[in-house]
This record gives sequence, C-alpha cells and structure tokens, in this order.
Amino acid sequence: MPTVEDLVERLFAGNRRALSRLLTLIENDTPEGRRALKQIYPRSGAAHTVGLTGSAGAGKSTLSGALARELRRRDRTLGIVAIDPTSPFSQGALLGDRIRMQDLTSDPSVFLRSMATRGNLGGLAPSTSGVVTALDAFGMDVVLVETVGAGQDEVEVAAMADTTVVVLTPGAGDDVQAMKAGIMEIADILVVNKSDLPNADLFYRQMSAIYESYSAARNGWQTPILKTSGAEQEGIEALVDALDQHRAHIESTQQREAHRIEQARHQVLALARQRLIDQLVADHTTDGRLDEIVARVARREMDPHSGADELIA
Amino acid sequence: MPTVEDLVERLFAGNRRALSRLLTLIENDTPEGRRALKQIYPRSGAAHTVGLTGSAGAGKSTLSGALARELRRRDRTLGIVAIDPTSPFSQGALLGDRIRMQDLTSDPSVFLRSMATRGNLGGLAPSTSGVVTALDAFGMDVVLVETVGAGQDEVEVAAMADTTVVVLTPGAGDDVQAMKAGIMEIADILVVNKSDLPNADLFYRQMSAIYESYSAARNGWQTPILKTSGAEQEGIEALVDALDQHRAHIESTQQREAHRIEQARHQVLALARQRLIDQLVADHTTDGRLDEIVARVARREMDPHSGADELIA
Repeated sequence: MPTVEDLVERLFAGNRRALSRLLTLIENDTPEGRRALKQIYPRSGAAHTVGLTGSAGAGKSTLSGALARELRRRDRTLGIVAIDPTSPFSQGALLGDRIRMQDLTSDPSVFLRSMATRGNLGGLAPSTSGVVTALDAFGMDVVLVETVGAGQDEVEVAAMADTTVVVLTPGAGDDVQAMKAGIMEIADILVVNKSDLPNADLFYRQMSAIYESYSAARNGWQTPILKTSGAEQEGIEALVDALDQHRAHIESTQQREAHRIEQARHQVLALARQRLIDQLVADHTTDGRLDEIVARVARREMDPHSGADELIA
Repeated sequence: MPTVEDLVERLFAGNRRALSRLLTLIENDTPEGRRALKQIYPRSGAAHTVGLTGSAGAGKSTLSGALARELRRRDRTLGIVAIDPTSPFSQGALLGDRIRMQDLTSDPSVFLRSMATRGNLGGLAPSTSGVVTALDAFGMDVVLVETVGAGQDEVEVAAMADTTVVVLTPGAGDDVQAMKAGIMEIADILVVNKSDLPNADLFYRQMSAIYESYSAARNGWQTPILKTSGAEQEGIEALVDALDQHRAHIESTQQREAHRIEQARHQVLALARQRLIDQLVADHTTDGRLDEIVARVARREMDPHSGADELIA
C-alpha cells in the first residue's frame, strides 16, 4: 500500500493512477487527502482554470466535449471536473454524456473526473477546489470545471476559476433567467450555445443589446458574446481564442494576483466555516445539547437566534 | 420613536405599519430585530408555510398571484415573501410583477414583502425565516415564500416550509432540469404551469411517468402532479385543495412535529454557522491575521486547509 508521499511523488511524475487515487482521498476529505493537498498545493497555480456554467439543458456537457477537442487540437492537456447532482435521475443522462465523451476519456492527455454535489440539489462540494489543485499540479494546461444549475454554485465557480464562461441557450426563458439570476455579472465570456436553433440569432441580438446597456467593460475587459454549437463543433475555435485572450488579459494587468487573493480568501473561509460548524455539531451532539436546544426551538420556547447563541456560548 | 416592545405589541394587535417596520429590523438582522424575534417567536407556528419554487421563467410570480386570489376567495389571510435577486436587471421585471399584483397589494388581508437575496446569484438570506416568523405571528393563515432559481435555495425553502410546491413549465429543458437537479425529491406538490402551451399535455404525461417510476409515496403522501395556468387562473382551486390536503396530512400523521424539529435544527445551525464565521472574520480582520493567512495561501506558501486550521486555532 503506497503512502500519501509515494502517491504525491508519482503524481508529480505524471502517473494517472496516482492522480486518480489522490483525487478520491481529496474528494472524500480524508486526513490523507488533506496531507496530500499540503504537499501538492505549492506545485499548483500554473494551469488556466476555466469555469463553465449556466442553466441545466444549456448543453454544457456537449460544449465541454467540443471545447476539449479543440484544446487537444492545439496540443493542450486538460482536466475536466464535472459536478453532477446525485439525483438517481441523473444516471441515465450522464451515461449518455459519457458515451459521447469516449474519444476524450481514452486520450492520455485528458483526465475526466465526475464529482458528486454537496446535496441532492447541487452546490459545490468544499473539496472541489482541492480536486482542481491536484489536476493543476499534475501539469494540466487547462482545468475545466463544469457545473449544473443556476444559483449559488456559479458564485463559487467564479471564485475558483481564472475565467468564467456562462452558457445560455436561445428561448426557454433563458433571457429572463440571465437577467433575474444576474449570472451575467460573473461572466468573463458569454456563450449562446445551440446556435443552430431557429431563434438563435434573435436571442443573440437581444443578449448583446441587454449586455451592452448593462456593462461597458469590467477592469478593462469587454466580455465577448459568442455563438457556439457544441453538437456541431461550431464557434469553438473562437471560444478557445477568447479563453486565451482573457488569460493573457488577466496576466498582463496583474488582475490575476488580486483574483488569486480573492480565491484564497474564499477557500480559507469556506473551509473554516465548515470546520467550525462540524466541530460545534460534533461537540454538542455528544453531550446532547444540540438536540435539547433544537427541541426547545421547535416547541417555540426559544427563538432560533437565542438557540444559536446558546449553542456557541 | 416606538420601542421594539411597542412595535411587537402593535404587531400582535394587527398593525400593518408595525409589521412592516419590524420586518425591516429583522431582515437587516439588527440587534432590535433579534430582540423582536425573541418576543415574536413564541406566538408563531400557526400559519401554513408554503414554499413555491422552480426554475426562472416558470411563471412563479404569476402563479403566486393566482394562488393568492384563490386563497382570498376562501377568506384566508396571507403573507407573500418574494425573494428577488439584487441584480440591476431584475428591477424592470419585478416592477411588471408588482403592477400585475396591484389588486393584492391594496388588500388589507394580504401582505407582500420583497426580500433581497444573500448575493447577486440568489441564496436565501439567513433572515428569511425570521421574516416568515413575523408574518406567521401577525396572524396570517398562509405564508407563501417564493424563490427564484434552481439549486441550493430549494433545499433551504423546503427546510423552512410545511409544504413545498415545485413549479415546472413544458419544454425548455425543464424535464432534464427536474431530473438533473433532483428538485422532485423535495416536492410535496408538483405543478406543471403554463398549461396553455401547446406541448403541455405531453410534458405532463412525461413528468407523470418519470415521477411514478421514481417515487411511490413519501411518508404516506403521494405527491400530486397538477396542471395550472397562472395567467388564466386555471387549476388554481385544485392547487389550493392540494395544499389543504397536504397540511391535513402532516397534521394527522404527526409529521409536522418531526418536520418542525428539522426546521429548528436547520435554522439554529445556519445562524450558528453565520455567527461563528462573522466572529472569526471580525477578530482576525482587526489583528490582520486573516489577510496574512490569505496572502500566504495566494502565494502558495500554505494550502487552504492549513490556512483554515491556523485561522481557527
């Protein structure tokens, strides 16, 4: 049985099996996983991390596949982290996605990792950033993180990635969705996917108009709006070009350093929050105080704020 | 200037202005708001709390309005808590919703409250449950909480509400969305809205088939699938009947007590988590340790786990 130190050494030497085993330790947040991350972390930071996000049904998996093929054509190595909801429903769909990705999964320069979400309804697991770190330290040129769902996840992805790509589809209330959910605020690149749909051009023009009125440029970067068809592999070269341009932009303007500090802050606080509450629950589950406080709040003898105060005290 | 105690007394006497002022204190999580909640909480618990959730563009606001009108026809008083993203985009759309709701906003037995989300991308503010508590203690028969977005929000709404209604629309990848996001797992009542759309019947049959194969019954409750049109006020009577049936079901089976304990646990832990991290950030912002740790993590001299450990230590 190899030690964590052995596995880390093999990871740095490019051993995929070691990478795979370490990812499992990291994803499950085991003590070995944390020890591994401590050794891996200093060697990470060279990869271009890209978040690919947008509402369900936007064709993100197919687009990820198309993107991966174009990146491979340009001789880039890449890791793909797909965040799948754990719903029993998702199995079939994901199997389909996986079959479509077969050419990629057999490519030794591509590493695909599916991760469970925190709950049934999405939410990035706190260990996601550790998985990205390991793929980065493995030497991948690009690490693509693909998330399902619109909501809090996007904020977390944006906090983790160098470049955030938001994927929209024509029709389907996606324009309203974009406006209401404010996902455009986190988009470094905006993609109108399924550009072969009949109403795609109209939708593209609408989005362009809305976006233009909303934001001129953020930190000197004008968010491009691109048309793609993941299924037809159309517009993908332009998307990879835009990724490269955004990366070059943040490198040249030293935004990357500011962003990395934000990334670090987000990660440290997310982990600290998790640790603190785990510790509190563990302590007061043993001594029965948590159940006692909860029962009193449920009986309306105490309000939740006082319950929280008493739990912490 | 009335004291919190005055305001609480007036709230119990049915004074809407006192309610409105208290909601502001509670939403902003001020010390006065917390003091008010302490006094209000023991008098809450009689209302039927209903969560209305589903993806953006599903017509939830229009459905809320239709539901409110039917509840008023049955002489029920109600509070509506609408969780709006703070995106600048949302202003226009929300104004439209508000105009459509004008007959309700002038009804003295209806109280509509819009709340900001935690961030730009949704997420229930921790103070949401306090707002529900105040409307409940005010004496509303029903408190309807309407959220935008699919994701972690739904879990929080389901943890807060007695009855969770999930709203879907025909087409638009909503079937895939439902499957992938697993929102059906939290639905006590499933609604196919916009039933006037041409593909509504097909969609309804698909959802019924999927749902039947997935879950027979949860705790003796068979989740009904209903067709509605919020805009045409169709199927709304059946929806209110289903709400009443679900309420009667949980009352009769003592599930309500178990659910209330879960609600209390969720609220106490959410507040405790927030308190702990706020305290930690405040302490270590003052002494500069947070910035120092974050900078070291950003420079890759320390991994995020070790950073979190050091911050807590």
